[in-house]
Parts: sequence; structure tokens; C-alpha cells
Amino acid sequence: MRTVDPEKHEARRRQILDAAVLCFARRGFHQTRTAEICAEAGMSPGNVFHYFAGKDDIIAAIVDEDGRETAARFARTDGETDAIAALMARIDASLALATDPIQVRITLEVVAEAVRNPAMMACAARNEAVRRKALAGLLEWAQAQGQLAAGLDIAAAVDWVLMLLDGYFDRAVIDPAFDAGVARARLRASILHFLRGEAA
Amino acid sequence: MRTVDPEKHEARRRQILDAAVLCFARRGFHQTRTAEICAEAGMSPGNVFHYFAGKDDIIAAIVDEDGRETAARFARTDGETDAIAALMARIDASLALATDPIQVRITLEVVAEAVRNPAMMACAARNEAVRRKALAGLLEWAQAQGQLAAGLDIAAAVDWVLMLLDGYFDRAVIDPAFDAGVARARLRASILHFLRGEAA
Repeated sequence: MRTVDPEKHEARRRQILDAAVLCFARRGFHQTRTAEICAEAGMSPGNVFHYFAGKDDIIAAIVDEDGRETAARFARTDGETDAIAALMARIDASLALATDPIQVRITLEVVAEAVRNPAMMACAARNEAVRRKALAGLLEWAQAQGQLAAGLDIAAAVDWVLMLLDGYFDRAVIDPAFDAGVARARLRASILHFLRGEAA
Repeated sequence: MRTVDPEKHEARRRQILDAAVLCFARRGFHQTRTAEICAEAGMSPGNVFHYFAGKDDIIAAIVDEDGRETAARFARTDGETDAIAALMARIDASLALATDPIQVRITLEVVAEAVRNPAMMACAARNEAVRRKALAGLLEWAQAQGQLAAGLDIAAAVDWVLMLLDGYFDRAVIDPAFDAGVARARLRASILHFLRGEAA
């Protein structure tokens, strides 16, 4: 029986996914051929197909990984004591993604594909559930610390935070006249107001 | 000399663009072949090429048209007397686009393409300038009516409105748990607060 070295297996998978992300960012999902991913990874097609069934399988793995990275980005870490400070740090980290060209291209490619392709929409929706759950976890922690307005609607607060994050991302990407610094300050203020139960 | 009937010419152009929008919404810009657009329009390739140089030319015309529709959607109409009411009506009309599946697919396709393709980004940025100008026009009208906070920063207000509109659009499209009704009410309240110079 052939034994598989899990570390080596994971390193090869990583190599393929990193190559695929570069290819997809360059030309999109549909224009990228599997052969280009193999060339970028420096691996033979036979070798790549040992790890992934094909391009769709690679795309699904990239979207799943994005979900895991999102969960890690929002997760509470040891040593954090102030829930609101932790939340605002997560918000800053999310806003920073708008200036990462690879992240921007893959994110927009996923959304454009999701509205046409139910399998991709299912992956994307799963990642949205991950974001919601992670954010709700931080808000519940803040609530337990007494830092939020009494009776705050957590689901509505999560919607508001995600709406602002996505809106900022889109403006930063598409509008050359967008003033990101001013918008970021207002976004932070708006979220804090919402969480404290103030008017808007 | 052959004479061209401008109305007939425009009707044929319209027929091609309507067919192209359907094809692009179905399969995206890259997967759609010009032959499919011709078939959808019920016209021969020779006939289509009489009106457009090729697929890229058709895409550019669709994006330009979107810009004109945006300008028309935001424009002040005769008989309107309350600038804030007019603004809120424009905002409602913009939010409604998030439930139009064709509009959603074309918009997302344009954004995903724009971050990879400088020519498309130039078209998209031109449309953003149109949106900004139209919104700023409504805000300046409101300012002249004394309906806005003294010293309101019009550019920052435009950024805030567009950020919320884009964020709402994205949430409505990608997150099945998004509560559009609650978010819409909060969005309207937030914009009014901003315009009145209140905290957030």
C-alpha cells in the first residue's frame, strides 16, 4: 500500500491553489484553462488531477478557503478583553481587503459567477453564513460585557456592518473619486452608533 | 448615396443590445460568442457588424447606456418641489435594481471585468462620475432649499449614499439571511441623519 505524507500532500494542494488564484485573478474563471494552472504551478496535468477533479473543484476549494480565512479573521483570540475594540479591529482588517488586488479580483469573480451558477451561489452563501456567525459571536460577547445597547437586534446589526463593509469595498474598487479615509471614519462611527442604540 | 433612416437604425441597434444583454446575463461576457447574440437578435452576423464592430463594442454600448439610464434615474424632473423627497425617491429606485436579475448580472459582470480590463474600468468610472454628479445635483438643490445642514460636505455625502446603495445591492444579491426591509429603513434614516448634520 502506498502511504501518503499528509504534509507533502497539503503542500502540493497549496501550490496548485496559489497558482490557480493567480491565474483566475489575471483572466477570470472562464477564460482560464486548466493547462494554464498546471503551467503556473509547474506541475503536470496528471499530477494536478491527482489533487483536484478539475477547474470547478479548484474554484470550490478556493471559495471554501476564503470562508475559513474569513472565520479566522473574525474569530476571538486569547488575550482580547474588549469586545468592541476587537470588533473594530476586525472591521479594519476587512476594509483593508479592498486594497488587495488579488482578493478584489477573486471576490468579484465569485459574486459575478454566483448569480449565474447555483453551485457557486451555495458556496458563497455558506461563506456569508460564516461571516454572519463570526460577527454575531463578537456582538454577543460585547453584549455579555454590557457594551451594547439593551435589546440590540444582533441580526440587524450584523446586516448593517456587512452592508457597510461591502459598500466600502465596492466604492474603493470602482469609484476613483471615493474618499476612503473619510468614508472609513464615518463607517466606524455609524457602526458604533448602531451598537449603542443611537438613532442612525 | 444610400440614405439611412435614423429611427430604423436606432431600432436595429436596440434589438442587438437587448439580445446581447440577455446573452451576457445568461453566460457572462467571456462565454458569450457574437454568434449567440446574432441568433438571439434574429439577425445575420453581417447585419450585426453593420451596427457594431464586435462584442467589445456591444459591451461598451451597454455600459454607456447604463450610464445614461443612471443619469435619467437621478435627474430632477419638472413638478418636483421637495429636494429631499426627490432624493429619497431616487434612492428607492436605485435599491429596487437589486431585485432585477438582469440588472444584477450585468452590473456584477461589469465590475468583475473592470478590475481586470482598463478599458472597462474607464467606462465604469465614467458611469460612477455620472452617478456622483446627478446625486450632487440633487443635494445642491436641497442645500439651496435650506433642507441640508449648513456646511454639509457634498462629496462626503455622495460617498455615503453610494456606499449604502452598493452595500445594500451586494447584501441583497449574495446573502440569503439579509433582511432587506429592516436594512432599507435604516439606510434611509442614516442618509437623512447625515444630510441633517447629525452624528452618524
